[in-house]
Amino acid sequence: MKSRAAVAWEKGKPLTIETIDVAPPKAGEVLVRIVATGVCHTDAYTLSGDDPEGLFPVVLGHEGGGIVEEIGAGVTSVKVGDHVIPLYTPECGVCKFCTSGKTNLCQAIRATQGRGLMPDGTSRFSLDGKQILHYMGTSTFSEYTVMPEIALAKINPKAPLDKVCLLGCGITTGIGAVLNTAKVEPGATVAVFGLGGIGLSVVQGAVMAKAGRIIVIDINPAKFEMARALGATDCINPKDHSGPIQQVIVDMTDGGVDYSFECIGNVNLMRSALECCHKGWGESIIIGVAGAGQEIATRPFQLVTGRVWRGSAFGGVKGRSQLPDYVERYLAGEIKVDEMVTRVLPLEQINEAFQLMHDGKVIRAVIKF
Amino acid sequence: MKSRAAVAWEKGKPLTIETIDVAPPKAGEVLVRIVATGVCHTDAYTLSGDDPEGLFPVVLGHEGGGIVEEIGAGVTSVKVGDHVIPLYTPECGVCKFCTSGKTNLCQAIRATQGRGLMPDGTSRFSLDGKQILHYMGTSTFSEYTVMPEIALAKINPKAPLDKVCLLGCGITTGIGAVLNTAKVEPGATVAVFGLGGIGLSVVQGAVMAKAGRIIVIDINPAKFEMARALGATDCINPKDHSGPIQQVIVDMTDGGVDYSFECIGNVNLMRSALECCHKGWGESIIIGVAGAGQEIATRPFQLVTGRVWRGSAFGGVKGRSQLPDYVERYLAGEIKVDEMVTRVLPLEQINEAFQLMHDGKVIRAVIKF
Repeated sequence: MKSRAAVAWEKGKPLTIETIDVAPPKAGEVLVRIVATGVCHTDAYTLSGDDPEGLFPVVLGHEGGGIVEEIGAGVTSVKVGDHVIPLYTPECGVCKFCTSGKTNLCQAIRATQGRGLMPDGTSRFSLDGKQILHYMGTSTFSEYTVMPEIALAKINPKAPLDKVCLLGCGITTGIGAVLNTAKVEPGATVAVFGLGGIGLSVVQGAVMAKAGRIIVIDINPAKFEMARALGATDCINPKDHSGPIQQVIVDMTDGGVDYSFECIGNVNLMRSALECCHKGWGESIIIGVAGAGQEIATRPFQLVTGRVWRGSAFGGVKGRSQLPDYVERYLAGEIKVDEMVTRVLPLEQINEAFQLMHDGKVIRAVIKF
Repeated sequence: MKSRAAVAWEKGKPLTIETIDVAPPKAGEVLVRIVATGVCHTDAYTLSGDDPEGLFPVVLGHEGGGIVEEIGAGVTSVKVGDHVIPLYTPECGVCKFCTSGKTNLCQAIRATQGRGLMPDGTSRFSLDGKQILHYMGTSTFSEYTVMPEIALAKINPKAPLDKVCLLGCGITTGIGAVLNTAKVEPGATVAVFGLGGIGLSVVQGAVMAKAGRIIVIDINPAKFEMARALGATDCINPKDHSGPIQQVIVDMTDGGVDYSFECIGNVNLMRSALECCHKGWGESIIIGVAGAGQEIATRPFQLVTGRVWRGSAFGGVKGRSQLPDYVERYLAGEIKVDEMVTRVLPLEQINEAFQLMHDGKVIRAVIKF
């Protein structure tokens, strides 16, 4: 079948809107009509060419909401008409990772997903016979995309897809990092580095966890209003201070925070986030994706004296079993999503959505097909 | 009073045996007769001059066992004749750290301890009127030493002090890192980097935790026999492999270990220890003390994909409330200490004890007064 899609033909170039060919779903696969998709920094990172694992030509996009259009042989967990959120971290339920009880990082289809292919080693996308690759196993910048069944979370159809698409990445990542990875307890002091969509979602998660103090750090003070509206108690602009930001935070918290979150991808700030943690128990969680080859560093004494360094991917959330509940919590008013959608654009203006994100003028721009 | 003591007059020089003056205990202090003391790498590190916080002249030593000789005003928790283990990490029971329930790092007397002084800011040691400093709040290389009451663990007098002195540092550090910091669960796979006294104690701790597989790594294969006797299941000499040791371990464990422990103080091996951990859940615990100014580094991706980087000091053990139980477990045959004492020397031969340790010819040399 034919599908409108934004194609990234090569790195560093704008996307072009094409009418591509989408092959039908094979066994265990599902054809999904994407209703809306967010545009995330990770898409921009791959498009820029900085991502060493980036492959082209490709249909980017990984923060979508859609409706099942057709199912392949053997598919049983979703049916035509179901509302779904595509998962770049699938949940097969049977691999060593899924059964460990310790992680959400299902590895069932990782190898092919990393090569931009479906589990059988081929692509469902093409144009004039030329293969176009999948991206993160989702490719939500195509109106019709094919997904493995294990990479679809079936959600409540009452939820507006042009909102809850954001639960497919950023918002869930931020909230989950607080609730699942850090397990922030009531009364805890939290520091959040970076107030993009993920950082603001960490603020939300901290409020849900009943944190006592939520300190946010950003060099763009325009973002503080939204952070305060969501529940931040202290806003710090590092430009207002001459000393290292970790020392500023340690001084204002009588020794450091209980939990910190790096939501930018800056390895220097990852160090700051660790070192602003309280001796004896402070835990720092890396969420941001650093540039290729970059490394984090600190003195080991920071860890020997009780700080803990962790990371979080998709907020530690198991997509199929736990994401539907995030949608329910959105519907119950517990998770705020609407506030994050600061711009809605048609597919044809997707390059403008990237530009708005680069310029820091949106929290999230959502593309509606 | 007079006391035999090994004094470090300056960095890099052998200790000299002196008869020093020891002032009586002030309020809240206790005079302890040290019966025996271990010689630990940390003593050697400070003596070498590499420790940027090292101060001279000083009475080193922090792994002792002794008997209360006299108590100062207000001391209630120990009495003359009690058997005690000096604690370089005290337990005041009332500071923010002690009451946190999250750490053993009591900070009640840290500032003065770091300056080689008793809590009132003075030293109890002198020779010909010249002040000699305390070390780690313990100074067990003096037959008589003065300690704050909060830095003494009262133990079962049935335990031989020339053995359980080692519970004052290395053995407890290793076992505690497994049981308290990592909380290794039955069946887990464990990697131990370095087979000194701490590494061998980690092996013991892993056996106590019922780990399924205990992989030890050392470049001195002479240490493997003892490791095997204690319960190691796999012994690796990195010199036998051309590739990075973390890759060797990942390959032999189908993806990596559940827990790893760095027991050397080598920042490169700290990285290896982290990176040999299993994606999704592996945790690495730094125990070794690195040289001044050295840093650990890794790609943040290692953490984002689920590995956790921690450290442990004195095995996370609260000295006054938990160490007495370690002594009981030794008496019950559950913790092996005798096997670690591979040489006993009189105080006069303490420099030989350092040399034996440097040459890797002992696990622990114990000095008997």
